[in-house]
This record gives sequence, C-alpha cells and structure tokens, in this order.
Amino acid sequence: MPLSMNKDVFITCAVTGSGATQDRSPHVPRSPAQIAESAIEAARAGAAIVHCHVRDPETGKPARDPALYREVTERIRDSSVDVVLNLTAGMGGDIIFGPPEAPFPVNAAATDMVGATERMAHVAECLPEICTLDCGTMNFAEADYVMTNTPGMLRAMGGIMTSLGVTPEIEAFDTGHLWLAKELVREGVLNSPALVQLCMGVPWGAPNDLNTFMAMVNAVPTDWCWSAFSLGRDQMPYVAASVLAGGNVRVGLEDNLWLGKGQLATNAQLVERAANIIEGMGGRVIGPDAVREKLGLTKRAPRAAAA
Amino acid sequence: MPLSMNKDVFITCAVTGSGATQDRSPHVPRSPAQIAESAIEAARAGAAIVHCHVRDPETGKPARDPALYREVTERIRDSSVDVVLNLTAGMGGDIIFGPPEAPFPVNAAATDMVGATERMAHVAECLPEICTLDCGTMNFAEADYVMTNTPGMLRAMGGIMTSLGVTPEIEAFDTGHLWLAKELVREGVLNSPALVQLCMGVPWGAPNDLNTFMAMVNAVPTDWCWSAFSLGRDQMPYVAASVLAGGNVRVGLEDNLWLGKGQLATNAQLVERAANIIEGMGGRVIGPDAVREKLGLTKRAPRAAAA
Amino acid sequence: MPLSMNKDVFITCAVTGSGATQDRSPHVPRSPAQIAESAIEAARAGAAIVHCHVRDPETGKPARDPALYREVTERIRDSSVDVVLNLTAGMGGDIIFGPPEAPFPVNAAATDMVGATERMAHVAECLPEICTLDCGTMNFAEADYVMTNTPGMLRAMGGIMTSLGVTPEIEAFDTGHLWLAKELVREGVLNSPALVQLCMGVPWGAPNDLNTFMAMVNAVPTDWCWSAFSLGRDQMPYVAASVLAGGNVRVGLEDNLWLGKGQLATNAQLVERAANIIEGMGGRVIGPDAVREKLGLTKRAPRAAAA
Amino acid sequence: MPLSMNKDVFITCAVTGSGATQDRSPHVPRSPAQIAESAIEAARAGAAIVHCHVRDPETGKPARDPALYREVTERIRDSSVDVVLNLTAGMGGDIIFGPPEAPFPVNAAATDMVGATERMAHVAECLPEICTLDCGTMNFAEADYVMTNTPGMLRAMGGIMTSLGVTPEIEAFDTGHLWLAKELVREGVLNSPALVQLCMGVPWGAPNDLNTFMAMVNAVPTDWCWSAFSLGRDQMPYVAASVLAGGNVRVGLEDNLWLGKGQLATNAQLVERAANIIEGMGGRVIGPDAVREKLGLTKRAPRAAAA
Repeated sequence: MPLSMNKDVFITCAVTGSGATQDRSPHVPRSPAQIAESAIEAARAGAAIVHCHVRDPETGKPARDPALYREVTERIRDSSVDVVLNLTAGMGGDIIFGPPEAPFPVNAAATDMVGATERMAHVAECLPEICTLDCGTMNFAEADYVMTNTPGMLRAMGGIMTSLGVTPEIEAFDTGHLWLAKELVREGVLNSPALVQLCMGVPWGAPNDLNTFMAMVNAVPTDWCWSAFSLGRDQMPYVAASVLAGGNVRVGLEDNLWLGKGQLATNAQLVERAANIIEGMGGRVIGPDAVREKLGLTKRAPRAAAA
Repeated sequence: MPLSMNKDVFITCAVTGSGATQDRSPHVPRSPAQIAESAIEAARAGAAIVHCHVRDPETGKPARDPALYREVTERIRDSSVDVVLNLTAGMGGDIIFGPPEAPFPVNAAATDMVGATERMAHVAECLPEICTLDCGTMNFAEADYVMTNTPGMLRAMGGIMTSLGVTPEIEAFDTGHLWLAKELVREGVLNSPALVQLCMGVPWGAPNDLNTFMAMVNAVPTDWCWSAFSLGRDQMPYVAASVLAGGNVRVGLEDNLWLGKGQLATNAQLVERAANIIEGMGGRVIGPDAVREKLGLTKRAPRAAAA
Repeated sequence: MPLSMNKDVFITCAVTGSGATQDRSPHVPRSPAQIAESAIEAARAGAAIVHCHVRDPETGKPARDPALYREVTERIRDSSVDVVLNLTAGMGGDIIFGPPEAPFPVNAAATDMVGATERMAHVAECLPEICTLDCGTMNFAEADYVMTNTPGMLRAMGGIMTSLGVTPEIEAFDTGHLWLAKELVREGVLNSPALVQLCMGVPWGAPNDLNTFMAMVNAVPTDWCWSAFSLGRDQMPYVAASVLAGGNVRVGLEDNLWLGKGQLATNAQLVERAANIIEGMGGRVIGPDAVREKLGLTKRAPRAAAA
Repeated sequence: MPLSMNKDVFITCAVTGSGATQDRSPHVPRSPAQIAESAIEAARAGAAIVHCHVRDPETGKPARDPALYREVTERIRDSSVDVVLNLTAGMGGDIIFGPPEAPFPVNAAATDMVGATERMAHVAECLPEICTLDCGTMNFAEADYVMTNTPGMLRAMGGIMTSLGVTPEIEAFDTGHLWLAKELVREGVLNSPALVQLCMGVPWGAPNDLNTFMAMVNAVPTDWCWSAFSLGRDQMPYVAASVLAGGNVRVGLEDNLWLGKGQLATNAQLVERAANIIEGMGGRVIGPDAVREKLGLTKRAPRAAAA
C-alpha cells in the first residue's frame, strides 16, 4: 500500500487542438509546417509523444483534410528528432444544435458529423503509432455543441484502428466513458491492455477535483497504461496529480495557452515545465523508444510512402 | 466524522418509465388508469413520491401526450392516498442515429427531439410538485440512442420549471452532469438548495461501484437534498447504499422488474422491500408531508382544474 | 466496474466481548454455559461463526482463564449445532496508565500485560478454527486504556497461530493496522491470503464514515477475505455497508446491545436482523461448511480431547 | 467542484527530528547552534516555519533539555531572518517494551515516559508560536517502540498549550488520530479552527497511498488549516500531493536525508526543491507574516527574556 507514483513518466504534448485558440496566442500553430515544427520542438524539450490535430493554414480553424495530416506526419518523420506520433480521430462527430425551441434542424454550418471510414481516413493514410478514440457522447464546453460518439460508431472506429494496427488512445471524459471503453475491450473491439487518457475538468465531463480523479484512477484496470490532464491553470497541477496516482502526463497548447500570469507559452516551454515537476518529484522522463516498448508500438512510414 | 446515514428517508417509486419493458412483466402499467393505480399502491406501501412517465395505453410504448399525463395526475390527486407527484420531463430529447457509416440523417422514426416549451407542456398543464431535469447528454444504454440535453436546452427547461414553481429533480447520470447542475444553480437558472437524483449504473453513465458513487456523493453540495438508485439486481443494494451515504431512495418498475430470482415484482412490493431494508438499518420512512416540508413543496391542483 | 456486492455472506456473531456491558443488559452472557448457549442460539439464527470472549461467571468481568474458554469450546462443540469457533486472543495486552502528571507507574490493578505464550494459552488448548489478532496499538475508547500489540508481539503471536494451524482473523482498527498486517504476511509470519476484520468506528481508531471505510476496503488485498463491523446504532447499517463493499458481516452483543429504541437485543435477534438485511439486498447467508471451504479451515477437537 | 489546489502555500522545514539519523548524514544538525543555523538557512530558502527538536550536542541522540531548546530559540530569534518557530512537544511519551515473552518491565533505558507538565516545560519557557501535539498512540516504526499519547495526556498537554497561547499543530498519523483531535476541539481543549499536520506513511500509521490520503483530507474540517508530509523518497511527491489537495507542505531532514540518488541534502536544498515544485504548479510560497495572519499567531520573546 505504498504511494503508487509513476517513476518512469512519458509526456504527451498536445500541440494545437481544435479549439478557437488560434487568435489568442501567436504560439498556436496553424499550418502543417508550423504544427510539425512546434511538435518537433516539444519532442526536443522532452515529449515522447506528440498529439496533433490540423487546422486550416489560413484561418486556423479546425480541419480534417488528410492532406494536412499527411504533411504534418511527413515533416515530423523527416525531422531528426524521434517522437511517437499520435493523431486525433476526434473530428467528424460534432453536432451543434439549433436554439432551445428548435434544436432540429441542427446548425448545418457548424455541424460536422460523418461516417466512421471518413473519420478514419487520415489515420488509414498516415498510420500514426497512436490515434485517439473519444469514448463517449457529451455536452462539450460552450454553446450547444455535442461531442457525439455512439457505441456503434466507437465499435466501427475501434475496429478500423485495430485492423490498421494503430493503437487507440481512449479518451475518457467521464466515468461512464471509461466504463464503455472497458466494454469495448471486453467485446474484443479494442485490444487489452489498453491505453487511456483521463481528460479531467473539461466541461461538462468529469470535474477535476481529486475525489473524482481518484474514482477514475481506481476504475482503470491495473494492467492498462494511462495518462491524465486538465486544462488551463490546472494543467501543471495535473502533471503532479497524474504522476502521483501512477499515470503519465499530457501538456501543450491544446489544453492551456499560459506559462504563468501574462506569459503566453510555447509547447516546448510547457513540456519543459512538466519535466521539471516530474524530476523535482523524483521521477524520470522517458523517451519515445521506452514508450514504444511499454505500449508495444511499431514506428511505421505512412501508407503511400511505403508503396 | 460519524457515519452519515440518513435516518429520515423518503422513497420515490418510479412507476413505469419509458423502457421497452411493457412486455416483459404484466405488472408494468401502461394506461393512465393502470399507472395511477400502481402509483397509489406504491404510495400505500410507503412511497412518499411517485415518479411517472406515460405510455401508449395500447402498445405500452413511451408517450408524451399531455392528456395522458393529465389523466394520471387527476387520478392520483383524486385518490384517497396522499403522495408527492413527480412527472418526468425527460422525453423529447432522444436522438437515434443512423448506422456508423451514415449517422446522419438520424433515424427519424425513432428520434424524438423537440423544443423546450413542447417538452414542458405537460408539466405546465399538470403542475406536479416535482419534475425531472436530465442534466446532460450521453449515450444511453442500447443501440445508438443519445439522450440529448444541451446546456442551452437545460437553461430553457430549467427556467420554465422555476417560473412555474415546479421543483426540478436534477437527474445526474455521471459526474459531469452534477457539475453542470451546479453551474445552472450558480447561474440562477435553478434555485438553491437543489434536489438531485444520482442515477448510478445506467450505461453509459457513471458505473455503480462504491468508489464512483462516493465521488458523486462527495460532490453534492452539503445543503442539497439527494437520492440515488441503480438498476436491476442492484436496485435493493442501492437502497442501502444511498441511505448509508446520507441520501434517499428510489425503487420501482422503471428500474427493475424483479423481486427475486424468477419473481416478477409489483411497484408496491418493491417499495415494501425498500422500507424493510431502511427500517432494518434503523432508519425511518417518511411520508409526503414530511417531504413537502423538507423540500418546500406546495401541493397544487392542475392548471385547468384551477380555472 | 460493477457494484462489488458480496452475494454469499457469512455472519459472525460476537457473543459477549470484554466491555463493561454485563450490567447493562440481561442478555449479555457471563458464564461459559451462558456464552455457549447464546452462541448456539446465534448459530441457529444464521451465524456461521461465533466469536467468543470469556468472563468471570460471577461478576461478568473480562477473563482469560483457559478453563473458561475450554468449557465454552466444549459446550459449543458438543451441541447439535454446527458453527465455526473463533476465540479472541486480544486479552493480555491492556495497559491503563496513571494520571497525566504521572503516567508511570501504570495502574497495576487494571493493567493486564503478559507474554505471547500466555496470551495464546487458551488457543493452544482449545484449537478453535479461528482466533483474532489485533494488529496494532492504540488508545482504546474511554479512560487512558491503551490496547497494546507491538510488531514484535504480533510476530510472536502470529507465529504461534500459524504453527498451531489456527487461522488468524486480523483485526484492523485503523489504516495503519492493515498496513502492518500486510507486512506480517509479506514476512511470512501470517499465511496468505489472510482473513481480516475491519473494525470501524471504535474510538480512537478509524471513524466509520464511508470515505474512511472505502479507503480501508480499497487497501485490502483482492485475494483476502474480509468482514467489517461498527458499533451501537451503526451495527446494522454496517451490515449493509460491508456487504455492498464486498465483505462479510459481524453483529452481536459485544458491539451493540440494542435492537431498536428501548429494545434490548439477544444475539440471535441481532443475527436475524442482519440476515434480513442481507437477504433483502439480494444476498445469501452462508453456513459454517461454506465458510470452512472458503477459508480452508478444518474443524478440530480441543487438544486434550484429542489425547 | 474545481481542483482544490492551495495557491498560497507555506513550507515547514522539519530541521532535525529525533530519529537515529545523525550518523547517516553530515547535514543533520546536532548542537543548538547547528540546529539554529540549519533552520535559518531553511528560512532563507523559503521556509515560513521551522519545526525543531533538539539533540545531545555530542552524540546527536534525541534530547528534551529545556536549555537546549532555549538556545535554539534564542539563536533563531536573534538572527536577521524572520521565521515562525514550531517546537516539538512529542518527546517524553516513548515506551520501548521488553521482548514478546516479557513485555513488562519495559526497557527502562530506552523508555522516556513523563508527565504533561514536564513534557511541556520547554514550551512554557520558550513560548514558540507553535508546538506539536501528537494526537494518538501507535506502534512507531522499528523495534517495539510505542508512541504513547492517551486522551488524558492530550487533554492535559492541550490545555497547557491553550493556556500558554501557543498554537498546537496536531500531528495525525492515522484516521483515528484526526478523529480524536476533533473530539478535543469539540470538548474545548483545543481552539477551533485548528492546525493539523497529516503525517503519511509513517509505520505503523496511515500508509501514504492516495486513497488513504484523500480519506484523511476529506475528514479535515473545512475551516481548519492543514499540511501534510511523507518520508524518504516520498517527501517531494507529497509536496505536490498536499498542495493539490489544498494543503501546505513540510520537508526537511527529520523526514528525508536525500536530494536524489546518492546526494545527501541540506535543509535549505530540500526547501528549495519544494518551492520549485510549488511554483512549477502555479502556487506561491508564502512567508512567516502571511502564516501568522492566516493562523492568528503572535511572535513573542521567550518567557525569561521578557522578564
């Protein structure tokens, strides 16, 4: 019954995300070149994994064009820095409803709701070592945006991941998402042991108080590998929380723009800060090869490049 | 730091629900007359509150016709048994998606997604003392059914409840729903202290293990009044769990059809069983007047009847 | 992640204890004949295990004369009712200090502090299937009484138990006692998997609030068998709490004298009440043979009788 | 329900303790001059409070001669660095028993068990702003040493502290100690709100896993001020744990000798390391005046010096 602290910690840098943050900090990368460059700097600073979304290079708005993912992937793979690539597969499940008196029809301009194969197209093409699987449906932050991932959709997407040999990183935003993930493993849709990210304090999923966090942690099967993060000013505290509870960490501009009051951060600075906390606590920051061994990943070239 | 057991416990009987259970037990009431009768028997057995849905009298399929609610309401109010009436306001937020490769268009036949005023029509007409407010969006049990209640919808529905003087019973199916409920109270949409039902073990919301349950309980503001339930064979264990943790209880055919192995239950039998557990533990089962005093409820006649 | 409820529950009846309760209820048995009779009635009511202390037959004061234990043991074994016998080994570790300005010398009249072999004499003679091992030192309830069981004493007593083939029931009164018990198992002093009783709400050990209880439960190794109890009015609530959390239960006059307000209980009545709660929750009460199989116990005759 | 992180954190440096550590590191201070000097360096490094024991200046063995405390106190007060002084009152309650077959008589050479007034003599003379009150009796670490503090002794010592105007820092080594502390506050022996130190992972008190820690934290009354620490390699992780859970921190050579593998630490280095973790997490390290304001302390001269 000792403290369950993780002594060999990997850091994931969530490089840019899909939030409307591109005009709030000059450091939020937009183009594939910028995203790859920021990812590479994060890897140099100690991130073993980079988690990437793509954006419209001009406007910075979230995108899911496979060509953009491909450029990011190739730029990172062609760089001199080794890092595990983790691409989001969270796009394409977004519904924004009409006003309360007329939720239907949905707001067509803002809604992006497509089939499983289309949601996985960039993963099938880029063959990253990891891609995410948002394991549930919930009200997501502001406006009337619903992040929609039904069990049927998850079975379809998870099945594609498994057949592609891309390791899913299950995103659990609340206790029920983790329950559903365990069901998908039980059904054989996902392999066991699984990799899970506990996404804490994302409205309106699980709040990030420690009692709720420990309920999440206690519910992760003991042979799974897990990481956790929270948002904004709670990003760095959650580096400590996750390591203490036996997990790995995620930082980056997707989740937090600030290094301190009035100080906009770069991805590399956030990774450095996280590494300092981990090392201050007596932990060791591990690199991409150690992560590959721990998770059974194989580094691959993109599909076309292999041809 | 003593055991926080609730010594004065109210029982809510959830009489029929909207599940596809009507053909699985002869005791699941369908018509307004049957629903009212079963509710009255539950009240006689010790339920202080009856929580009612309505069904198509012929097929037993879930319905939301205000006339059906009105008949249930009047039959219960005209009976010789006093009981607090709690009507669901959960209908009208149901989306069933198309298959994974084509989630849109939604399954129009199965989807029932309407505006806030329409969802509240029966409440406005019947003026029950309590109606429910499902505080979130999630994958709900089987198939690709999403229970959809966006923050905007909840603000609209909650505002109508508050202006009607009908006390909302917040249904929290996961930790994030409780967080959103607290936000609605903070915003003034809902009154404080609030009444909350912790709905445990409903796929794919919060699982009903005790660690998760305690995280939910610890997150309820100390001045709120709360109840909890779980499903099927965990219904009676959760009577004990909720009372132990300081809460009230809900039983009934909406959540569980069985009294024991091979024994289909009536609502009254489930209420009696719950009362026995509560009293065996040294608690007291309180009646509708004590509940009204505790929650500040006022018994009223339906709107038209008042005219 | 389902509710971890125990469906096959054994009940231990703690028949008389060593508390100063003998004059507070006519049902507290004093003489070996009375203790055996009350134990047998408890077994008839559903207790699979009876946990016995002995008392001075005249005054009712706690005693540890092996002849008294022997009489209790033989009377129970000679009865027509089968039950697992669990004798306390908690006596002989009691220090009552002098007043705060002169804690030493200790109150010699009230102190009873002897060596390991003497503390185990009645166990060695009676060879019960189970005896208790209080796994720690703490301020115990009123006055300046310290229950004293140092690691060295526990290693000596535990070693004797293991060599006698008597299964220790580890009594853990706080989180640290459970930690020490795990250390004794790690050292090989006690066999694994072990049997543990979580003693909740005994001043000044662990309070019996559910958060503390769950911390205790979460710390029990998953392959151990455990039970829990609390005192007085919390005895019956803890029947429910322990079963919910996956454990077995203990009731009896050692821990609680009352069936309800103004109603003094018998041991048999307390066992019946516990059985009703367990069965109301959907559990099954198991008997002595099922317990023997679960715990690997062998029923034996007392040592002399075997000669 | 946000993360309860403490943003304004004070650091206590536990300068030397009473452990047999003096020969294991050259940095463990022995003489009053060394202890004062190490305390002052810790204060310069950011400790708002220094917690001091004294030792025999020659052998380094634990001592409780008031003259030694007086010298430490005066040296610290005469220095140019401001710091809150916290003296232990834990000495004089130590019993080391004889071997398991003869626990009595106790080991007289090693036992130090005296009356309340004698245990408080140095506190009465030095009038530190804070002194400790070990709120329980337990097996303490190695050998058969029992830390003995009965309720009667605690009432006597606590009463002296309150009448001297010295704020007690309650040391809670397990959940039951915290329960007893709340009882002492309820009785009026100790003032409310109280100050408490959660001592985690000290054998054989509460283990330092996060579930147990959160049970302790959840049991601290919300208006009390608290801190927490753990030992050895878990010292720095507990800096993070305590801050995350809303508490303050304690580091120092009493609890841990090492800065890293093979690197013996000084008190100042441990304080610096803790400050870095706190600031990395976005917290602020507060100084002695802020602590005095928060805890209602008044800096005083020693009794004789005031004459």
